[in-house]
Amino acid sequence: MYSFAQILQIVESHIEQINYNRSPQSLYLPVQYILSLGGKRIRPALMLMACNLYSEAVEKALQPAIGMEIFHNFTLLHDDLIDEADKRRNQLTVHKKWNPNTAILSGDAMLILAYQFIGDTESPLLKSILEIFTVTALEICEGQQYDMDFEQWPDVSEDEYIEMIRLKTAVLIACCLKSGALIGGASNEEANKLYQSGIYAGLAFQLQDDLLDTFGDPQTFGKNIGGDILCNKKTFLHLQMMQRASGAQKELVRTIQSDKNCRPEEKIAAIKSIYESLGVREITNDRILHYYNRAMQELSGLQLSAERLQMFYGTIDMLLGRKS
Amino acid sequence: MYSFAQILQIVESHIEQINYNRSPQSLYLPVQYILSLGGKRIRPALMLMACNLYSEAVEKALQPAIGMEIFHNFTLLHDDLIDEADKRRNQLTVHKKWNPNTAILSGDAMLILAYQFIGDTESPLLKSILEIFTVTALEICEGQQYDMDFEQWPDVSEDEYIEMIRLKTAVLIACCLKSGALIGGASNEEANKLYQSGIYAGLAFQLQDDLLDTFGDPQTFGKNIGGDILCNKKTFLHLQMMQRASGAQKELVRTIQSDKNCRPEEKIAAIKSIYESLGVREITNDRILHYYNRAMQELSGLQLSAERLQMFYGTIDMLLGRKS
Repeated sequence: MYSFAQILQIVESHIEQINYNRSPQSLYLPVQYILSLGGKRIRPALMLMACNLYSEAVEKALQPAIGMEIFHNFTLLHDDLIDEADKRRNQLTVHKKWNPNTAILSGDAMLILAYQFIGDTESPLLKSILEIFTVTALEICEGQQYDMDFEQWPDVSEDEYIEMIRLKTAVLIACCLKSGALIGGASNEEANKLYQSGIYAGLAFQLQDDLLDTFGDPQTFGKNIGGDILCNKKTFLHLQMMQRASGAQKELVRTIQSDKNCRPEEKIAAIKSIYESLGVREITNDRILHYYNRAMQELSGLQLSAERLQMFYGTIDMLLGRKS
Repeated sequence: MYSFAQILQIVESHIEQINYNRSPQSLYLPVQYILSLGGKRIRPALMLMACNLYSEAVEKALQPAIGMEIFHNFTLLHDDLIDEADKRRNQLTVHKKWNPNTAILSGDAMLILAYQFIGDTESPLLKSILEIFTVTALEICEGQQYDMDFEQWPDVSEDEYIEMIRLKTAVLIACCLKSGALIGGASNEEANKLYQSGIYAGLAFQLQDDLLDTFGDPQTFGKNIGGDILCNKKTFLHLQMMQRASGAQKELVRTIQSDKNCRPEEKIAAIKSIYESLGVREITNDRILHYYNRAMQELSGLQLSAERLQMFYGTIDMLLGRKS
């Protein structure tokens, strides 16, 4: 059985060995650039960990796992372009370092490369892994589209928001866990439990990301703190605030949001103070814990030794930055 | 054996039956829109025709053939955005009818949908069809990138241009012919001859498109005539002109190209008259004929009855708008 650190090392060294020696370099350099920016490699690591729950031959899941990471980075590349984000992992985004057209086309190439790596799954499982991945990839586009659409909606309900982040974030984590388990030899029933646990873990993960966008440490977060507030994004925190705010507070929020002359740091501080006064931080933390517990509950139903389960719990804890 | 008209009908009715009944419609409406704009359905038709050379069970190639058409339309969607084109098949392009972000994301969904349809190939052939398609899809991105890069290059050689259109246009036609043949039960040797013939037919097809962009009939061409001239595009016609122009003519071309006040119709007429005086139209037609003959030569090496071959020749003639 591999430790999480060992798995990460396998993933990282495999990503470093990707061969970008193709022409034109103007297409492949941005691919190499975004993949070299790092990131936590959570998805491929979870995929190998899930495979390792049922098999020692984690190398069988390695190519498709790297494909999942390439796919994830493709979504970041196009989403950053759509969101006009300047920074990713404290570095320039591809459309800023190069230009929007390069970001479109290198992103397209990455989606194809992702399929190339995932297509390297051994034959008996190829069709089902491709099917799971393809459905997941479409769901992620749907999630991103809802995210864009929500900007134009006057109101977004909590359920609608949770469904959006399920599609945009949770299904890929779930897909990695399920595919990894299947490649490791798990039954469909076991793989589906891992899928479900991935959905809950993914929801917790995204809500934590929402929380960190406002309350995180600028040194470790990688994006500018308060970005969601500055662009009036309807995050979980925002929805909770609007649900609980008094008439006067709602009016204040609207004034702050529409004031084009408000300095960024003042806007962030003002909304943050309303969050604090309404307990939005605690409510979000409670919801993260709720999904975390559901994820763990699903895992506890797996037909595995206590030792393997314990190790996997630790992985989920690490993913969510929890010390157990 | 099916006629080309029957094959087209099968393709068209299958495209009409695609189910877009998924949410959010803001993601899927543009997909439905671009696929409903028509087009000649050359790629899926050629794929089924190639399958039909070796088998009566063309329905085995139907899903992947539709996948190739979806992929082709995905490339049009993103290329139109990159090229800032307003019209496609006499209708508004997706980024004009909706907006650029919708064009990015609906395009991404189409690339995934293409894989979903192509992934419906029966199991023994799935891996090889996916591999051929994936390599082809990457080559098409490379071709589009070269096309973009050429705008910045001071000089593009004829060889570089032909390589660009091989990647951007020819390989997908070749891929359709090869995959269709393999699904029909052809040997690798036969399938590779069809691939090679598709490369030549694709080169002829693209050069003809270059020619029609300047000398075509506005009613049937679907795009504005003279578009390549207006944006100073380094097409085959342009390269031939610059190769043959006198010093004074080159100077004249540079003056016309950099004159921001020149009226569009005047610019088109001026460049067209230089084309005519240097015989660029005939040179291009000669080259189209050259590639057409090479395509036919490859086909004549196939292990097929004279009747089947004759019918297939007719298909290639139709594709290139030739009356044999």
